[in-house]
Amino acid sequence: MSRYGIDNLPYGVFSRPRGDRRIGVRLGSTVVDLAPLGGLLAAPTLNPLLEAGRPQWTETRRRVTEYVSGTTGRIPLSEVTLHLPFEVADYTDFYSSEQHARNVSQILRPDSPGLPPAWRHLPIGYHGRSSTVVVSGTPIRRPSGQIAEGVYAPSERLDIEAEVGFVVGVPGRRIRTAEFAEHVFGVVLVNDWSARDIQAWEYRPLGPFLAKSFATSVSPWVVPLDALATTEPVAQDPVPLDYLLPAGPAFDIRLAVDWNDTRVATPPFAAMYWTAAQQLAHLTSNGAGVRTGDLYASGTVSGPARDEVGSFLELTRNGAEPVKLTDGSLRRFLLDGDRVTISATAPGAGGTEIGLGEVTGTVLA
Amino acid sequence: MSRYGIDNLPYGVFSRPRGDRRIGVRLGSTVVDLAPLGGLLAAPTLNPLLEAGRPQWTETRRRVTEYVSGTTGRIPLSEVTLHLPFEVADYTDFYSSEQHARNVSQILRPDSPGLPPAWRHLPIGYHGRSSTVVVSGTPIRRPSGQIAEGVYAPSERLDIEAEVGFVVGVPGRRIRTAEFAEHVFGVVLVNDWSARDIQAWEYRPLGPFLAKSFATSVSPWVVPLDALATTEPVAQDPVPLDYLLPAGPAFDIRLAVDWNDTRVATPPFAAMYWTAAQQLAHLTSNGAGVRTGDLYASGTVSGPARDEVGSFLELTRNGAEPVKLTDGSLRRFLLDGDRVTISATAPGAGGTEIGLGEVTGTVLA
Repeated sequence: MSRYGIDNLPYGVFSRPRGDRRIGVRLGSTVVDLAPLGGLLAAPTLNPLLEAGRPQWTETRRRVTEYVSGTTGRIPLSEVTLHLPFEVADYTDFYSSEQHARNVSQILRPDSPGLPPAWRHLPIGYHGRSSTVVVSGTPIRRPSGQIAEGVYAPSERLDIEAEVGFVVGVPGRRIRTAEFAEHVFGVVLVNDWSARDIQAWEYRPLGPFLAKSFATSVSPWVVPLDALATTEPVAQDPVPLDYLLPAGPAFDIRLAVDWNDTRVATPPFAAMYWTAAQQLAHLTSNGAGVRTGDLYASGTVSGPARDEVGSFLELTRNGAEPVKLTDGSLRRFLLDGDRVTISATAPGAGGTEIGLGEVTGTVLA
Repeated sequence: MSRYGIDNLPYGVFSRPRGDRRIGVRLGSTVVDLAPLGGLLAAPTLNPLLEAGRPQWTETRRRVTEYVSGTTGRIPLSEVTLHLPFEVADYTDFYSSEQHARNVSQILRPDSPGLPPAWRHLPIGYHGRSSTVVVSGTPIRRPSGQIAEGVYAPSERLDIEAEVGFVVGVPGRRIRTAEFAEHVFGVVLVNDWSARDIQAWEYRPLGPFLAKSFATSVSPWVVPLDALATTEPVAQDPVPLDYLLPAGPAFDIRLAVDWNDTRVATPPFAAMYWTAAQQLAHLTSNGAGVRTGDLYASGTVSGPARDEVGSFLELTRNGAEPVKLTDGSLRRFLLDGDRVTISATAPGAGGTEIGLGEVTGTVLA
């Protein structure tokens, strides 16, 4: 049973050799070209569809489902190039896994190992660089920077962060949690590549900057919210302030992190403390607007078990406890030539398990 | 002698009632419409001109100077609406005034009042929100947010930051300081409105987020680098790493901050520790690219004297020492209805003093 059947139909942007960019949906290991449907689907990016809003999203999905069921025109994935599916407006990243925040505090700030003071009161986040959001498969050149006082060199502690990203369709401000699905179109997987040595030296007091701005990879398939089953969010203590309630839906997305050929972790998105609806409500609670194409990521997804963490910082305890890959080699952080692939599955709204594609990247020297 | 004479000619985007957006230059208290010159100047934003690069910038300035000298077609500023002159791609903000960084540390972190550890080694910065960069004159609605644990309310400590912003024209990565003028087109004034209570509660460990994302105002006139005289940067100790050398030009821009009708501060940009060339080199040193329309701001400009500071946090010592305005009223932070105007002048490349326009905004409840 394919995880990319008729119940899923994630949207992407593809091209064939010397062809233009077209919107398609993934069906099994093929792409169905949607340009023949015209209108919002005859565009080189998803932005016009994103902007159209929930009623149009529902109607378009109905039409696409009907079209895909009837057509025999399918292009093997191996024959297409996949592109960044939408133009990224502002990119924001949160920090909403309690286990991740605790792990990072314990590892990097052993003198003050608790959660940051505001952590349980609001979804902490920061703005990232939009121009370096790249599609899965784009090689990741190891960043250089000040890795310690007086040392400008290639990062020696290049890491990943396995995250789930939410793609904003309809602009808005002061968006309530209950309005989440009116504004958010769908979901991608995100790898927020991070240079831990650069980060440790630069981050006080304004947060991460060059440690994360060199590349953020996203999966090429945007899974519509309509395709995903929802679940109950985790209990929150203390009860959040009114503007963050109700918490909104959670999603039981099960991530998997492959370091070369070895599956090293399976982070559970259902364990996240703050929901995507709360993140959006918080982001816009001060009056700031979101735009079509805004991307906001969940923050590193980490569960309580050692093999459920979404970063190598946590997996190897900052390099102190190397992991052994299936080829017998040891890893502390990423080596040149290493490949990381984050994939995910989730219960679908249609009752079957669906795939969220994958986000992959290989490290270049 | 006008500070907007033939030696200045800053570019902006204006419209007349029911008219379209056009590029113009400011001459005295008038605008000269440049659309008749066609080409890069027949556009609704400066982006095509920004993208064209230094040789085109020089040639365009020559043609504009000639055209402006010959034309009698001038539109009074009072008859036009000024717009955001370019589409902002990524927005970045630095923290490059030593005096400001010291003041903030002393006021907010009296237990560790020195500079942050990396401060003298690299220009600390962070990414901001592009979608909320607005043109001078746009009213600023007081943001709400978590101003303390358990309290969601309008900010009670609304502040300004007087800064100088640099507008990137030509994309690039790993830009050397000596290449600064090949990539940067010109200069605007920036007010990085800041809610200090929101900031204090949210900023650990990822930096400011909602405290600054609600609005960033910029002046409507982009002064070309060509119009500005350069000066020597301040001495740096320790000597920066190679990728930050030579330090590049400095600019003797003299800012002035008016709180309603009272001039409360005159921050000296020449006192900045890190130069704009070093900021751009640092920003791109990890491999991240800049794009046409990127805006990066200097960070709050503060000199050593009490009346040279670029924020009210510093001016009133976090509200502990109110300032008296000329109408006799006292201020700690911004009240509803208050208006703040940042203006600036600088020695021009042509030998006369030039104006950098102003960035103004009125606080709404």
